[in-house]
Amino acid sequence: MSKYENWQLSKASYPYSTITQTRFGDMDLLGHINNVAMAGLFENGRVRFNHSLGMASLSEGERWLIAAVQINYIREAHFPDDAEICSGISRIGNSSWDILSAAFQKDRCVSTCTTTLVLTDKQGAKQIGANLRAALEQQMVRIA
Amino acid sequence: MSKYENWQLSKASYPYSTITQTRFGDMDLLGHINNVAMAGLFENGRVRFNHSLGMASLSEGERWLIAAVQINYIREAHFPDDAEICSGISRIGNSSWDILSAAFQKDRCVSTCTTTLVLTDKQGAKQIGANLRAALEQQMVRIA
Amino acid sequence: MSKYENWQLSKASYPYSTITQTRFGDMDLLGHINNVAMAGLFENGRVRFNHSLGMASLSEGERWLIAAVQINYIREAHFPDDAEICSGISRIGNSSWDILSAAFQKDRCVSTCTTTLVLTDKQGAKQIGANLRAALEQQMVRIA
Amino acid sequence: MSKYENWQLSKASYPYSTITQTRFGDMDLLGHINNVAMAGLFENGRVRFNHSLGMASLSEGERWLIAAVQINYIREAHFPDDAEICSGISRIGNSSWDILSAAFQKDRCVSTCTTTLVLTDKQGAKQIGANLRAALEQQMVRIA
Repeated sequence: MSKYENWQLSKASYPYSTITQTRFGDMDLLGHINNVAMAGLFENGRVRFNHSLGMASLSEGERWLIAAVQINYIREAHFPDDAEICSGISRIGNSSWDILSAAFQKDRCVSTCTTTLVLTDKQGAKQIGANLRAALEQQMVRIA
Repeated sequence: MSKYENWQLSKASYPYSTITQTRFGDMDLLGHINNVAMAGLFENGRVRFNHSLGMASLSEGERWLIAAVQINYIREAHFPDDAEICSGISRIGNSSWDILSAAFQKDRCVSTCTTTLVLTDKQGAKQIGANLRAALEQQMVRIA
Repeated sequence: MSKYENWQLSKASYPYSTITQTRFGDMDLLGHINNVAMAGLFENGRVRFNHSLGMASLSEGERWLIAAVQINYIREAHFPDDAEICSGISRIGNSSWDILSAAFQKDRCVSTCTTTLVLTDKQGAKQIGANLRAALEQQMVRIA
Repeated sequence: MSKYENWQLSKASYPYSTITQTRFGDMDLLGHINNVAMAGLFENGRVRFNHSLGMASLSEGERWLIAAVQINYIREAHFPDDAEICSGISRIGNSSWDILSAAFQKDRCVSTCTTTLVLTDKQGAKQIGANLRAALEQQMVRIA
């Protein structure tokens, strides 16, 4: 039933990393980081990763949408420890791609996240152009 | 690449339903319900579904944890429309089970969510007992 | 030190009311509705109140900004009980006005909120026009 | 109508400071930090300030509750800039005290916050003991 592989739990597998603070409000009743709050931490790491990709690679009128998010909760995550969010590209399709992210606290992986994005314009899903494809290819995860 | 099946988009497939209001704060920059906020809507529907299961079926010292959440974003969701969150059990394993949920606005499915829960006690994952299994079996999704 | 008056604790003092659901995620560690989450409940009630005011009363290029929010936490608020958010106008100044709101659970006031809004255009704060002033005056709180 | 004084806008007035990251999810429709999200930033800064106070100064069975929060929104706040949250004690009463906080982005004050806390035990509000009072007195704001 395991939904992730061992290499995904290692920081060395990801080309990009950013530190995200946890907040008091991320905790739920049980005193650990809530599962929805973890989705927010991943969103924050992903936004900064996308910035780093230079989304100037998008053409006029294009934008991407989130089609799917899959999160595995591996260990309890805690406040006030920082979360290091590592990210890389794990799949490039015709009009969509996957960002694989992992959250670390005290250097142990607490959670992984796969986000599927789709490139769109007003007509709907759109083929990934050469510039964007090149930017994505430079940030692939490293599968050991 | 589609991560859901047609029967999942129909309310008739789910034994349980609850209305959840959307909030102004659920919207993001783009003016639609943010993907993390949608995870919060599903959490809320799932909590009410779990209440309905009579989790008195748990024995002393047992609790469940969320092991994984997978969400598909199918259509843009909007404020201030209510979201109807339908839920049912889609898998019962040895120590874990899946809740399948779908969010509807104006009777169209905007998003689906699969949540994997694991039964635990202080020793870790634990076999699902007869009472809990019976409660889960009464709330299975109906695959048309 | 009391920062509210008795009439503020009565639903009859407010011309407008809307029911807002509480969510699982509104609870904090202590098991009651978190103080920031309560601010979100008030925001939601206020947005719906503003809609009811027919903000078509605004002229082209005008918008309002929130200048201040003051919340009193009077009783612990609980999930999954609904919160009834009542609102009315409690002050109309030259370019700003106050919305007074109160949150009720099981018909008891759990919290009050005063929000100060300022009318602005590109030049900054702006005098309230006749249409907006008339709309605000029709929704004054009733001080018993 | 101004609800704050000039000295409150200066970092030098506060004995404690902590950096809080803003998150993508803190933005609302208008593209600036939402007013409720700002309340969350202040909560986070306050929690860390309270830790620094050594709340070991509390006796067994005591806890404090938030009685009131008053926030002034002075300038638009932005993502992804960090927010520096400065805090100090601005009032010590019989059983309650005020924490005054200010949020800075790029060294300019964007918002101030006054939080009133009440010391309680099972009987309700309780007189502040000598240890807690001494801890609070060491962290007073400096009114220029």
